Amino acid sequence: MPSDPLEIYQELQNAFSKDVKSMANQTFIGKVYRASCQFLAKAGSQPLKSLVRGKEYFAFSLSKKLSRAVNKSLFIAKPNEWEAFCKAIATKRAPGMESERITRIIYSVAASFFCYIDLTKDGDQKTPGTFFEYLIGHLFAWRLDVNPKTRLPVLNLDMEATLPTDFVFDLGPNRAKFHLPIKVSTRERVIQVWAHQRVLDGVYGSGRFIGTPVILTETKTDKRKCEVIEICLPDQWRIYQMHIAQLKRIYYLDVPAAYSRLNDVFPPLIVKPFGHFFAEADTLPT
Amino acid sequence: MPSDPLEIYQELQNAFSKDVKSMANQTFIGKVYRASCQFLAKAGSQPLKSLVRGKEYFAFSLSKKLSRAVNKSLFIAKPNEWEAFCKAIATKRAPGMESERITRIIYSVAASFFCYIDLTKDGDQKTPGTFFEYLIGHLFAWRLDVNPKTRLPVLNLDMEATLPTDFVFDLGPNRAKFHLPIKVSTRERVIQVWAHQRVLDGVYGSGRFIGTPVILTETKTDKRKCEVIEICLPDQWRIYQMHIAQLKRIYYLDVPAAYSRLNDVFPPLIVKPFGHFFAEADTLPT
Repeated sequence: MPSDPLEIYQELQNAFSKDVKSMANQTFIGKVYRASCQFLAKAGSQPLKSLVRGKEYFAFSLSKKLSRAVNKSLFIAKPNEWEAFCKAIATKRAPGMESERITRIIYSVAASFFCYIDLTKDGDQKTPGTFFEYLIGHLFAWRLDVNPKTRLPVLNLDMEATLPTDFVFDLGPNRAKFHLPIKVSTRERVIQVWAHQRVLDGVYGSGRFIGTPVILTETKTDKRKCEVIEICLPDQWRIYQMHIAQLKRIYYLDVPAAYSRLNDVFPPLIVKPFGHFFAEADTLPT
Repeated sequence: MPSDPLEIYQELQNAFSKDVKSMANQTFIGKVYRASCQFLAKAGSQPLKSLVRGKEYFAFSLSKKLSRAVNKSLFIAKPNEWEAFCKAIATKRAPGMESERITRIIYSVAASFFCYIDLTKDGDQKTPGTFFEYLIGHLFAWRLDVNPKTRLPVLNLDMEATLPTDFVFDLGPNRAKFHLPIKVSTRERVIQVWAHQRVLDGVYGSGRFIGTPVILTETKTDKRKCEVIEICLPDQWRIYQMHIAQLKRIYYLDVPAAYSRLNDVFPPLIVKPFGHFFAEADTLPT
């Protein structure tokens, strides 16, 4: 068995699209997590100054390199937790595992591989981004028990084309369809998520696709000062939710403080830790 | 007088926001153009293989560096043309200069400075992008005779906030307002332009802001193969124009072939060389 996280990632990459919801993908993800934890066990760790109230962050370090910020209370380097999680979701129904624990496990799978890449590559943003798409895409597909599409046909009188999309999941006639944008972080690019939802509403009818983006974090690290901040635009989100389209949920692995407050104001904009998805997936369309 | 384009650019940068439509800014832009032309006169030139039918491209070269692609029939290295153009638009009315000539002059101002940066810096995308915003922002402000804003108040019952925007121009009560996104190229990020228009329509009423993005080009150069292509998504543009918001014009300096064909199909999506703006600015609201 290879113990290089990147080699296992490449095996996942080769296998992923053949059957997104496959057990094979789930196993590869677990192996990436295990290998990344083994690698990080030999790395150092550096506390960061968190400017986010109530959250502590640190970074892994190796020779002169520093990884991105890792949330101290979310990160666990216990590969066996992935197996426990897989067992809990094996039935593809609401699992008998706490949402908080699920969020921590998925956060740790992503963060451990990202930090491995940060410490071994220079400025590689693509590999973490793609791995995060695999991780979340697989888990959505597994839970809904259907594989996603990334193109949809558009039939419009004299125009025939296909629309490239983020992952969309079609549970079949008269059942829900999900629109799943997956981002490591969003910043000002987040307006794209609402715009894509608007296009789906327009082309297929409002409410046909349930928009449920999944985002890892909005932290930004100043490596010189060793400071962590969260970049959030809550007032802009409210305007997008009122004037562009309605998203059903915005899931985070590391929920930004400024966005969790949106749960309490108008317009309805429900921001939750991603672990909740597994319990509420069946009731989201209602 | 400094003859380093970057030094003059920095003077422009210091002056720009104080009075966007000022004659001072217009003069700085002309000096940047003149200095860039002087610099490029000493550089080499390398023909590129154009995979865009009917267009020829070349690149400037200096020691081992190669600039971005330059459209052969649009580029003119004649700094006096800027003075001729300034004279033609001095009245702030429809100018007595051909639209095609205006497009070539403005294209050349942008392209000459961009190529100077390409040949003297490593991977600096920010300076060209900002200079292009100054160039187009100033010309719009000059022609409309009003300075732009980049924040708008949003009053919404229990919520008070300001919305950051691209340049917007307010000609006063009961007169037109323009929404001016400025991009060097768009690729898949273009959906943002429609989404911002949608937000303006939603917050201030449909038709209140006239959306007129200005884009330089959609060329992409493969420097290894010395090949130029255009990256266009015309079917997606049609879907955005039908389902997100309506843009009044999309101006290009180097109009991509695939987008000029959108002038002839549904939905109405008028793509024009930017030089036309100066003649049609007063009639755009009608």
